Amino acid sequence: LHSYPFSSSLLSCPPPLRLDHHRMADAYQLQNGAGDKKPLLELYVKASGIDSRRIGACLFCQEFWMELYALYEIGVARVEVKTVNVNSEAFKKNFLGAQPPIMIEEDKQYTDNRDIEGRIFHLAKEYSVPLFEKDPTVEKRIESLYRNFKLFVRAKTDFDKGKKVPADIESLPAAIKIHYNRIVEQLASIDQLLADRQTRYLLGPSMTEYDCELMPRLHHIRIIGQRLLGFDIPHNLTHLWNYVLTAYRTAAFIESCPADQDILHHYKEQLNLFTNQRETLQSPTKTHTLPESVLGEIKRLGLDRK
Amino acid sequence: LHSYPFSSSLLSCPPPLRLDHHRMADAYQLQNGAGDKKPLLELYVKASGIDSRRIGACLFCQEFWMELYALYEIGVARVEVKTVNVNSEAFKKNFLGAQPPIMIEEDKQYTDNRDIEGRIFHLAKEYSVPLFEKDPTVEKRIESLYRNFKLFVRAKTDFDKGKKVPADIESLPAAIKIHYNRIVEQLASIDQLLADRQTRYLLGPSMTEYDCELMPRLHHIRIIGQRLLGFDIPHNLTHLWNYVLTAYRTAAFIESCPADQDILHHYKEQLNLFTNQRETLQSPTKTHTLPESVLGEIKRLGLDRK
Repeated sequence: LHSYPFSSSLLSCPPPLRLDHHRMADAYQLQNGAGDKKPLLELYVKASGIDSRRIGACLFCQEFWMELYALYEIGVARVEVKTVNVNSEAFKKNFLGAQPPIMIEEDKQYTDNRDIEGRIFHLAKEYSVPLFEKDPTVEKRIESLYRNFKLFVRAKTDFDKGKKVPADIESLPAAIKIHYNRIVEQLASIDQLLADRQTRYLLGPSMTEYDCELMPRLHHIRIIGQRLLGFDIPHNLTHLWNYVLTAYRTAAFIESCPADQDILHHYKEQLNLFTNQRETLQSPTKTHTLPESVLGEIKRLGLDRK
Repeated sequence: LHSYPFSSSLLSCPPPLRLDHHRMADAYQLQNGAGDKKPLLELYVKASGIDSRRIGACLFCQEFWMELYALYEIGVARVEVKTVNVNSEAFKKNFLGAQPPIMIEEDKQYTDNRDIEGRIFHLAKEYSVPLFEKDPTVEKRIESLYRNFKLFVRAKTDFDKGKKVPADIESLPAAIKIHYNRIVEQLASIDQLLADRQTRYLLGPSMTEYDCELMPRLHHIRIIGQRLLGFDIPHNLTHLWNYVLTAYRTAAFIESCPADQDILHHYKEQLNLFTNQRETLQSPTKTHTLPESVLGEIKRLGLDRK
């Protein structure tokens, strides 16, 4: 179990102090201001399969982490994040079958996404944080993206089995190409939405739950595309790429983001693919930059200055 | 993967036909009436660690199964339930890290409790099924019961470690007794609520989401209490026991209920306790009867005729 205190200065800091690796909760906390009466929310997120001190690639975990970060940033709550190895005896015993994300507040344990969201919703409402505004158009546009991506991942990795390098997208049989086309179409429709709206985040100038949902998924699509599928988000989707750039400039996203190696490891584990030592021994890195040409186009259009 | 078709006559039938155990979905379906346009909802629930064709002790799975059963019973939806071995390669590959319960409708995959509930909520609303009526009193009364039970389970099994039989409740040190007292207090407060309301289910004459939440948890408390902790729901809580009896007479509960052995196995697994062969080899049984004296008292008061 490893803890991540919330601190906007953490990015340039050394890794947080670990008090004692053998205890269930080796956490310390940084407070954002003096308020002792602020609720303290602890979020347990899935650890990486490579190193249980590192953040694993759990999308719901990152989603809630981002939402909590938003509450933390404006001083509504104190937040601590801890990584947990779900296979450890200590974890199983403490949570008796519950899976991360798990949120704890005083003596309350939230082990259900509905309850975690309910509590965050309540806090956001109490302090008028516009984190949960509804927008059916956005909801519809983003809802099946990740499911479609999973279908593509499965079909493509099956097809690539035994090959030294992933097959070229153009050479794919129609049955697999159909999954690819669906992804690209949907990415294009999100690009179009962003172009129409001309907003920084999906709903406006500030982050909402839709961004907490979409940003981590887009990043997984990018990393897994690049490292496993021979696929990239099409470079002509400039508004979508600009949105990815926004993610890379959003502290809530960066702090909660697993390393590339940990994302890749998660998918390989699920797909029962061979993990080579290079990945598990590499120093973790995070791809939070854009392809040169895409960045150039974004700058040319002035999108990054919104 | 093993499937459970919905049929109210299933209780007295032989186990459902398995077409092909090696396919991912070896399901057949029974239709409740003719309506081909009814949505078909497939629920994937966690399989037992003893036998992946048997239902495992996953509380969220049973909760949604019960809700879906309610929709099925009144003819709103067709439903199929399948058990999945979460450790199998086939499962991991198909769902890429998602955990049961998972619901599938046509090409939509719901892997998040919020989304599963959202879909069931929507269907219930569309057909005016009063499954999601709100009652803050009930909500408050039941919310921390299971969390408190988990604390008790952990403390008590730790204390019992190495003993041949579970220690008597009366002999427990104060630090553990406190957990026991909290459970009993809370069970008594639910008993009082039921006594005040004089209703069959928590909110009235028909089952709501609160019952789908409480009934499985009460049953786990009973089975684990009996088989692991030397604890029983106090026999003087007649209204609570009558509510348990209601569960045992509710098809949605019975059909979705794991066998005693599978419930016990789940807790032992999480607690890292030794599982003896007797449990894994036993024919699965379901305790769906009440202690004689309690049943006598219920009948004397006429509670079971409500």
